[in-house]
Amino acid sequence: MAALVAANVFATQPAPNALLARRTRRPALRAAVRVHAAGAKMMEAPNYIDAVPDTLLRPGIDDPASMRGKFERMIRKVQDQVCSAVEAADGGASFRQDAWTRPSGGGGITRVMQEGKVWEKAGVAVSVVYGSMPAESYRVAVGKDIPFEKDDRVPFFAAGVSSVMHPWNPHCPTMHFNYRYFETEDWKGVPGQWWFGGGTDITPCYVNEDDMRHFHGTYKGVCDRHDPAWYDKMKANCDEYFQIPHRGETRGMGGIFFDDLNDRDKDAIFAFSSDCAANIVESYVPLVEKHKDDPFGPQQKEWQQLRRGRYVEFNLVYDRGTIFGLKTGGRIESILMSLPLTASWRYDYQVDPQTPEGKFLNCVRNASDQKWV
Amino acid sequence: MAALVAANVFATQPAPNALLARRTRRPALRAAVRVHAAGAKMMEAPNYIDAVPDTLLRPGIDDPASMRGKFERMIRKVQDQVCSAVEAADGGASFRQDAWTRPSGGGGITRVMQEGKVWEKAGVAVSVVYGSMPAESYRVAVGKDIPFEKDDRVPFFAAGVSSVMHPWNPHCPTMHFNYRYFETEDWKGVPGQWWFGGGTDITPCYVNEDDMRHFHGTYKGVCDRHDPAWYDKMKANCDEYFQIPHRGETRGMGGIFFDDLNDRDKDAIFAFSSDCAANIVESYVPLVEKHKDDPFGPQQKEWQQLRRGRYVEFNLVYDRGTIFGLKTGGRIESILMSLPLTASWRYDYQVDPQTPEGKFLNCVRNASDQKWV
Repeated sequence: MAALVAANVFATQPAPNALLARRTRRPALRAAVRVHAAGAKMMEAPNYIDAVPDTLLRPGIDDPASMRGKFERMIRKVQDQVCSAVEAADGGASFRQDAWTRPSGGGGITRVMQEGKVWEKAGVAVSVVYGSMPAESYRVAVGKDIPFEKDDRVPFFAAGVSSVMHPWNPHCPTMHFNYRYFETEDWKGVPGQWWFGGGTDITPCYVNEDDMRHFHGTYKGVCDRHDPAWYDKMKANCDEYFQIPHRGETRGMGGIFFDDLNDRDKDAIFAFSSDCAANIVESYVPLVEKHKDDPFGPQQKEWQQLRRGRYVEFNLVYDRGTIFGLKTGGRIESILMSLPLTASWRYDYQVDPQTPEGKFLNCVRNASDQKWV
Repeated sequence: MAALVAANVFATQPAPNALLARRTRRPALRAAVRVHAAGAKMMEAPNYIDAVPDTLLRPGIDDPASMRGKFERMIRKVQDQVCSAVEAADGGASFRQDAWTRPSGGGGITRVMQEGKVWEKAGVAVSVVYGSMPAESYRVAVGKDIPFEKDDRVPFFAAGVSSVMHPWNPHCPTMHFNYRYFETEDWKGVPGQWWFGGGTDITPCYVNEDDMRHFHGTYKGVCDRHDPAWYDKMKANCDEYFQIPHRGETRGMGGIFFDDLNDRDKDAIFAFSSDCAANIVESYVPLVEKHKDDPFGPQQKEWQQLRRGRYVEFNLVYDRGTIFGLKTGGRIESILMSLPLTASWRYDYQVDPQTPEGKFLNCVRNASDQKWV
């Protein structure tokens, strides 16, 4: 059951237990979790609750001053901030909230807004889950010959916030972000393992260079405050991760993406992760406010619907977290919250390279060549 | 490259080289082809051609009187019959045709109709492809210790017809069919392997018992002419194959489905396959003609769009042929021809069990309990 509960955390974004893991520093752990997932049963059903608890940590067990507590407070604050800013910019609809806890501890809070004035669909979900992985998989992962009994399991903790926003206007970009933290507990003398992952990326339907300079510039600024080498590296990671190989395109126009990050002090990475999350609103909402009343016609709307179709293709065919969640029994509504309200597929749609649509395709077919900042 | 060219043949339907193979009589061959697919490069690009050749067989190599020739003639006749019947019933749009050949022999003919009077999108594709699989994979498959050189490859042939039809009216069902034939050539003293696969299945948005009795009754009639045990078995196969496990539903209301069929004389199975294909129009088109002018409102249209979303989920997440095609470089437009023109996802959509939508959900959640005939 264990690793399965992580599905919610990783809905719509890269999971540490990827079915399609690429370029990882922890191939053994990934492989081990993958094996575990393949034999997985449906996860335990959530208990829906009316009131959101102050914390999803386990009372008397998890130290609120630990990274678990700090990370939970950070992601819940981000959920509040982003939802408030989006509601204010929308000026119409409000987020609906669903909260639940799990018998084994932890829980989730999903907020979704549908058919607002500005956004067609927007969702922001947090979850904090406890699970355990088979000892054999864990042993393979850490590469040490730890003796264990057949049914031994290694406890882990995973928490994350994830979001996708799809505006109505084809000139307003879709935006996705996810920030997550994973740790295993000390087990048979082996210290706990931990890492951070996440990123913020943008998916417009048209190329607006000023917008891209603003979005990428915001994240370059964040990265530069923590490590001047990070922006270029994480931008490249993002372009690689969000590929749709069967289309020869990326899903969108990138941003930053990191995974398995544990190469320095835990608090330093937490500070970076928090800084990324604190800049989501500033990186994105001004672009929507700028374009929400831009004129458009049926041609632009049709193009947007086709791009939404590509979004669905990426999420259902390649996104590690989505696939893992679907195949192991995560909460479906949280996992598929990322899908657009509407999408379209047309047979063999042809685009003239000289049109705005053609210019866009050129960008997503050569994402790594785009140096926005 | 070899097995990859088969992707077109199996677009939108079960492939013999399934990533998610279940319940098969040839697990070794499936596993072998799977291994091969994992290391696959992009398939060769098709040459688009203006005129459709009389045959896609290799002149002077393939005997037109062989099963290859018979199967090609059958599927091309089916393509003509189904397209003519659908155009006549639509009374508006015509099918557009794209044809291509491959440098290594064979080719494909894809016909798609979009935004007709009755159908939102309809496609019927045939392909006839030649390829080769690694000798090692083949040896594992047939379970014989055949000596081979490192780069030896075993030639195969695959041909099929596949189709999906999405009407506009929520009271008209979507229909999918696929009939295919696969064989390997004699190789190092081992006789060629062969099998047939296919089926026709129906995906309405509402339960209409008369319609289901007509559709299933037609295929029970076909099965009974060939083997009285087949309908029950193939109906069960269909209900199992078209499951969407993460939703706890089937994609539609079934039909018949068979794979790896080679348990009797080749001509007897060909006769069955041809009889199935010859009854596609009769099983389906009358249902569309009956309901194409049924009144409906926004509630019914919304429900249809959500069911189309489920169709997309099945095809992109579970359908063996689609996944294989996407991940190995098949012709994308042929593979994704099956996706609807429009689809929708709403967060946590709730349905009252007493409504027609609730009655439908009860059916697809208990597909194997539905005995239509």
